[in-house]
Amino acid sequence: MIIKDFSLSAVAAGIKYSDRLDLGLIYSKTPAVAAGVFTTNQVKAAPVILSVDRLKQGRCRALLVNSGNANACNGKEGMEAARYTSKLAADGLAIPEDMVLVASTGVIGLPLNIRAFEENIKPLIDNLSEDNFELVAQAIMTTDTVSKTVCKSVDIGGKEVRFMAMTKGSGMIMPNMATMLAFVLTDAQISFPELKNALKDSVERTFNRITVDGDTSTNDMVLVMANGAAENPWIEDSRHQDYKLFKDTLESILKELALRIVEDGEGASKCITIRVCGARQKRDAEQMARTVANSNLVKTAFFGEDANWGRILAAMGRSGIRFNPEWVDIAFGDTAIVTDGIAQGLEAEEKATLVLKEKKITVCIDLKDGAGCEEVYTCDFSIDYVKINADYRS
Amino acid sequence: MIIKDFSLSAVAAGIKYSDRLDLGLIYSKTPAVAAGVFTTNQVKAAPVILSVDRLKQGRCRALLVNSGNANACNGKEGMEAARYTSKLAADGLAIPEDMVLVASTGVIGLPLNIRAFEENIKPLIDNLSEDNFELVAQAIMTTDTVSKTVCKSVDIGGKEVRFMAMTKGSGMIMPNMATMLAFVLTDAQISFPELKNALKDSVERTFNRITVDGDTSTNDMVLVMANGAAENPWIEDSRHQDYKLFKDTLESILKELALRIVEDGEGASKCITIRVCGARQKRDAEQMARTVANSNLVKTAFFGEDANWGRILAAMGRSGIRFNPEWVDIAFGDTAIVTDGIAQGLEAEEKATLVLKEKKITVCIDLKDGAGCEEVYTCDFSIDYVKINADYRS
Repeated sequence: MIIKDFSLSAVAAGIKYSDRLDLGLIYSKTPAVAAGVFTTNQVKAAPVILSVDRLKQGRCRALLVNSGNANACNGKEGMEAARYTSKLAADGLAIPEDMVLVASTGVIGLPLNIRAFEENIKPLIDNLSEDNFELVAQAIMTTDTVSKTVCKSVDIGGKEVRFMAMTKGSGMIMPNMATMLAFVLTDAQISFPELKNALKDSVERTFNRITVDGDTSTNDMVLVMANGAAENPWIEDSRHQDYKLFKDTLESILKELALRIVEDGEGASKCITIRVCGARQKRDAEQMARTVANSNLVKTAFFGEDANWGRILAAMGRSGIRFNPEWVDIAFGDTAIVTDGIAQGLEAEEKATLVLKEKKITVCIDLKDGAGCEEVYTCDFSIDYVKINADYRS
Repeated sequence: MIIKDFSLSAVAAGIKYSDRLDLGLIYSKTPAVAAGVFTTNQVKAAPVILSVDRLKQGRCRALLVNSGNANACNGKEGMEAARYTSKLAADGLAIPEDMVLVASTGVIGLPLNIRAFEENIKPLIDNLSEDNFELVAQAIMTTDTVSKTVCKSVDIGGKEVRFMAMTKGSGMIMPNMATMLAFVLTDAQISFPELKNALKDSVERTFNRITVDGDTSTNDMVLVMANGAAENPWIEDSRHQDYKLFKDTLESILKELALRIVEDGEGASKCITIRVCGARQKRDAEQMARTVANSNLVKTAFFGEDANWGRILAAMGRSGIRFNPEWVDIAFGDTAIVTDGIAQGLEAEEKATLVLKEKKITVCIDLKDGAGCEEVYTCDFSIDYVKINADYRS
């Protein structure tokens, strides 16, 4: 898929490693309506601070993104580096500096290799092409083992509206209001307030429901750029069905991207959905599901394919959410393993152990105390996670 | 050390494995003043529920403790099993049932092997002796690699007051109000309210400051039994210096036990103190220290001996505690690695990397925003932690 008036480019700039794509550029021929959500970590990387500020105008023309270095915790020099690299792109593209956003991902606390940007900005711009979407998706990878893209189109008001989306992320993943990097390009005609709301709502139930390791990054960012080339009727009323259609499409895309991150979680061998139902409130269900999804003991048991529901119940018990242990049902897939707080015996455990051999597993917890229901998505916790993170900087 | 009128015993009852001590008994010839603190996990094991109830009277004569099975999440049968096993001990010792406390540790959700208790209660009682303290400390181990005991004596009012304390715990360790199992025997003469307060205060700054994996157990319990055999002047006024002396001694013992648990944390190779100073309030300092101490990314970096302060700053940033990243100092031991939010360069990192080769490491974080200071104790996160917990039940 391509989208009219969006062009892309990626080069191997040697920011951290040589011989791999690590610098990407996304360019919109026309000023795109743009909205973003960013990390809630108080320690924010320089590119996050700069992009948050520039996005206030609701428009942008270009995004310069690098992997290999997060440009986080670099103080004033980090901010200067973010501004300077955006200026390199703006000058090369002959557009105003404040129409360029920047994003970075990689090691925290090392000075950004400015020279790699200076030397590569010209080839980067020269290579801009509608066809390079996949290359940019590769350029933003760090410990990711696969690149992650989703393309979709939907008919809005008789016009085909296209979406092309990419994301990266594998460790330091428990986005609180956003995620690692995710970029969505669309040719929809949509006004800024509607785009912003659609993004905010969609992120809440997608990227904000995944966790790999409970750690929230300093560089999380989800960005949508809508250039209007589809010429669909302007979406500028959040009560209109076109808005709903746009939002549902965006949410389904973000959910697919978010699940790709979990599947590719550092060292992960399994993708796990923790569903809590029957809570008094939705946010109770979410908090409990998140506590279970972040329990190292639960996650190592999944790695060991051990139907260790006792660890799930122990994690629920420390979640801060009130419930009656004697009412609780727990099932692995369709296999009930705990009913009314009582274990269902060896046969049920043997069945559940078979469920755990699958790659995708859903754990259903029913508190039978209300109508609140939420899901959180996570992965198992393996020896490779420790290996990757004991070695990451070296 | 022995304490007059306390006798102990342990046998290999075959509760889970054969050929290892797994059932212990502590017996006080006279009714001991007793106080306990217990898990705050809402899912409480049957022995916890029973012992909490029986401790309301502030006295006990005996404690029956087993490893290999937590007797948690076993419903009504679990409660019946806890009561029945306590009755076996009470009948054998010819004391009232409600003077017997019970404690269990091990796998959650498997029925307790009652027969192992029935068959072994007689030899257990027959073997009671003042000298068996170390055997009981061994009998309560699960994934622990060493038994953990501390003995101390202190002069109170001209009398030698003795303390003998044991603990166990290695995984599922982030006690919230208590810990895994810890038992302290003393011959102090102390009234119940003072004993209870001394215990509560001491636990707060010892067992409640350690974390191995962020998981709070269903079976946590710290119990103190004071039989008065030292004949020191009764401690019954919390303003009296004897109370202070008793409490300080108890706290130092509990701290030593708590640190032993961290040192023997599942798969741990290092013992790490996270000290946060300069917070606006003490509880802010604690919350931040706890967030850093529970970060898998921080802990795997310690395992890799990588002075990855960026992960520490990222964890601080998601702790929920407000601070100014530009004021922050971080040091590993005496080596400043971040000053006023700025990295101190490669030389400092090389020095810090040497600090990380030690077995005991202190990370000092200064927020320079107040006088609040707290410490949390943890261990690194190794490949062996994952191995142990992927295999634990098999």
